[in-house]
Amino acid sequence: MQDNKNNATAKAFPELSPTYKDPHQYPPGVAYLDSQYVPISQAKISVLDWGFLHSDATYDVMHAWEGRLFRPELYLDRFFAGMGKLKMSIPYDRAQVLEIVMNAVALSGLKNAYVELICTRGCSPTFSRDPREAINRFMVFVVPFSSVANPEQLQRGLHVAVAERTRIPPSSVDPSIKNYHWLDLVAGLYDAYEKRAETALLLDDQGGIAEGPGFNVFIVKDGQLATPDYSVLPGITRRTVMDLCQELALSCSARALSPQELTNADEVFITSTAGGVMPVTKVNQNNIGDGLVGPICKRIQQAYWDKHTDNEWSTLVIYPDD
Amino acid sequence: MQDNKNNATAKAFPELSPTYKDPHQYPPGVAYLDSQYVPISQAKISVLDWGFLHSDATYDVMHAWEGRLFRPELYLDRFFAGMGKLKMSIPYDRAQVLEIVMNAVALSGLKNAYVELICTRGCSPTFSRDPREAINRFMVFVVPFSSVANPEQLQRGLHVAVAERTRIPPSSVDPSIKNYHWLDLVAGLYDAYEKRAETALLLDDQGGIAEGPGFNVFIVKDGQLATPDYSVLPGITRRTVMDLCQELALSCSARALSPQELTNADEVFITSTAGGVMPVTKVNQNNIGDGLVGPICKRIQQAYWDKHTDNEWSTLVIYPDD
Repeated sequence: MQDNKNNATAKAFPELSPTYKDPHQYPPGVAYLDSQYVPISQAKISVLDWGFLHSDATYDVMHAWEGRLFRPELYLDRFFAGMGKLKMSIPYDRAQVLEIVMNAVALSGLKNAYVELICTRGCSPTFSRDPREAINRFMVFVVPFSSVANPEQLQRGLHVAVAERTRIPPSSVDPSIKNYHWLDLVAGLYDAYEKRAETALLLDDQGGIAEGPGFNVFIVKDGQLATPDYSVLPGITRRTVMDLCQELALSCSARALSPQELTNADEVFITSTAGGVMPVTKVNQNNIGDGLVGPICKRIQQAYWDKHTDNEWSTLVIYPDD
Repeated sequence: MQDNKNNATAKAFPELSPTYKDPHQYPPGVAYLDSQYVPISQAKISVLDWGFLHSDATYDVMHAWEGRLFRPELYLDRFFAGMGKLKMSIPYDRAQVLEIVMNAVALSGLKNAYVELICTRGCSPTFSRDPREAINRFMVFVVPFSSVANPEQLQRGLHVAVAERTRIPPSSVDPSIKNYHWLDLVAGLYDAYEKRAETALLLDDQGGIAEGPGFNVFIVKDGQLATPDYSVLPGITRRTVMDLCQELALSCSARALSPQELTNADEVFITSTAGGVMPVTKVNQNNIGDGLVGPICKRIQQAYWDKHTDNEWSTLVIYPDD
C-alpha cells in the first residue's frame, strides 16, 4: 500500500473540465430537441442514449424543396408506425410533429432542406439496461438538401456495384421500421469503391437484389418497371414513383428481382428522398442499355420534380422573412 | 404572394436559442472526448455523427473491479481489430488508449466501473455521405459497474426465453466487430418480457442458439461445457471462461448448439463483462436441471472473481486520492 501511495503522489492526473468544448465544424441548420430550437452545432445527444449505444431508434427523412415540404403526411405515417413497432412513444401527435418540422425548417431559412425526424429509446437516469425504463426522445434536424448523386452523376448516371454483403434480413430487423443499422450498407459502399463504382446495391438473403445505402432501386425492361419488394425499406420516393407510374400509365410491379434482371435491364434508376429519382448507367462496370440515361427514367424524374410545386403533393412552409 | 406575406406576419415563430440546455439526469461518471476529460453529463455527440445516424461505430467494454482493470489487453486487441475491419483509425496507439482509460477511471473515482471505448465514423464538416471523408472519433466513458443480472437473479439464476427473432447474421454484419446493431436483441428482450422471462437468447440463421443482449451463453452437460461459435461476438468473458476451464481441467468446446441442447442441459450460464458469469435456471419457463444454480457454474464464477485480484489477470489503477 505504501508503494501505491508513492506512485499516486508521483502521478500527474489530467484536468477534469467542468464543460466540454466542441472543436468540430457543422453545416448550416437548425434542430429541435427537448422543446428547444437550436443551431445544428448545439444538437447533441448523450453518449448514454440507447439510440446511440444500441442503435435503438427509428427515424424518417423528408425534404423541403423551394420552400415546400414534399408529401409530409406519408413520412409521418411511416415514422409513427415505426415508433409503434418499436414500442416507443413521444408526447406529440402528428399535427404537433408537423408543426415542429415546419418551425425548424422556417428557422433554418433553408428553402431546399433535408429534414430528419428521430425517436430514440433514450435512457433512464440510472442507466438501466431495461428498455421499458427508458424515456424515449424525439428530435428533428434540418440541414441543406443533399443528394445520393452529385450533379455530374445525375447527368451521366451513377456507377453501381452489387456488393458481396447481404442486407440485414427481415427475420432480424423489420425493414419497414426505418433504422440506423447500416454497417452492412457501409461495408457495401467500401466494396463498391474497391470495384471502382460510386455506390452499392446489396443482395437480400434469398439472393435477390435488395437496396443500397439510403435508396431503393427500379429497373425498366421492355417498358415495364419493377422494384424489389423483400428486405427493403418501403421508401416514400419509391412509393411516389409507383404513384407517378399510375398517372403516366406505366406498368410497375414490386417483386423479387434477380441480379441478372438488373444487369440486363434497359434502364436502372435509384430513388431516395436524398436526391429523388437518380439514373444508373453502369452496374459492375458494364453499361446498362446503351450506357445513357434512359427515356423512362427522364420522364419519371421530370414528373417527380413537377409535383414539388403541386399543392396536392406539397405543403408551403412560411419563413420568418416571407 | 400577398397572401403568403399576410400569413407570415400573422405567424409567430418560436425562439431559436443560441445554446441547448440539457434537462436530463445522468449517472455519476467521467468521459474522454476530443482530448478533454469531462463529467458524463457533458459527454455528447452531434446528431450528425455517422456513429449515431448509421450506427457506423465499433466499441468495447472493459471493467474495473476494486480498482483494477480486468484483462485490458484483450479488450484493446478486439477494439483495435474492429476499427481496422471498419477502416477506421484514431490518433492513439494501444498504450495511449490504455492511459486514457486509466485516467478516465481514476478521475471518475469509481472502483467498480463499466468502461466503454468507442470509435465512430464521425462526420465531415460538409455532412458528406462518403464514409471516406469522415473524421473518425474516439471516446471513452466510465460509469458505475452494471450487471445483466441483478443481485436476486445472480442468487437464484436468470429466467431466459428463446426469442422468435433471429440474430443479425455474419453475412450481413461481422459479429467479431463489436457493434451497436441491437434492434434484433431489443425485439428479443420485448419477446422475452411477454413470455414472462427476464432476458432473451436469439437464434442464428441456421437455427442454432446464438447469443443474447450483451452476453454469450454456455451449457454444461455431463460435466462438459459448450458455447456457440457462430453468429456470436467472441466475448472476452466467454474467452476468460474458456481459459478458466483449462486451469480447472474442464472440457469446453465452441460449436453449434441446438435449442434442444440448451433446454436439456444440466446447467446454463451466460457471460458478459457486465456481470461476469451469471447463472440461468429457467429457459422458456422450464427448469434447467433441478432449477438451482449448478456446481460448475458456481466454481467458474468463483474462479472468475478470484482472478480479479491476480496481477497476471488485472492491472492496478492509481486514483487521485490513493
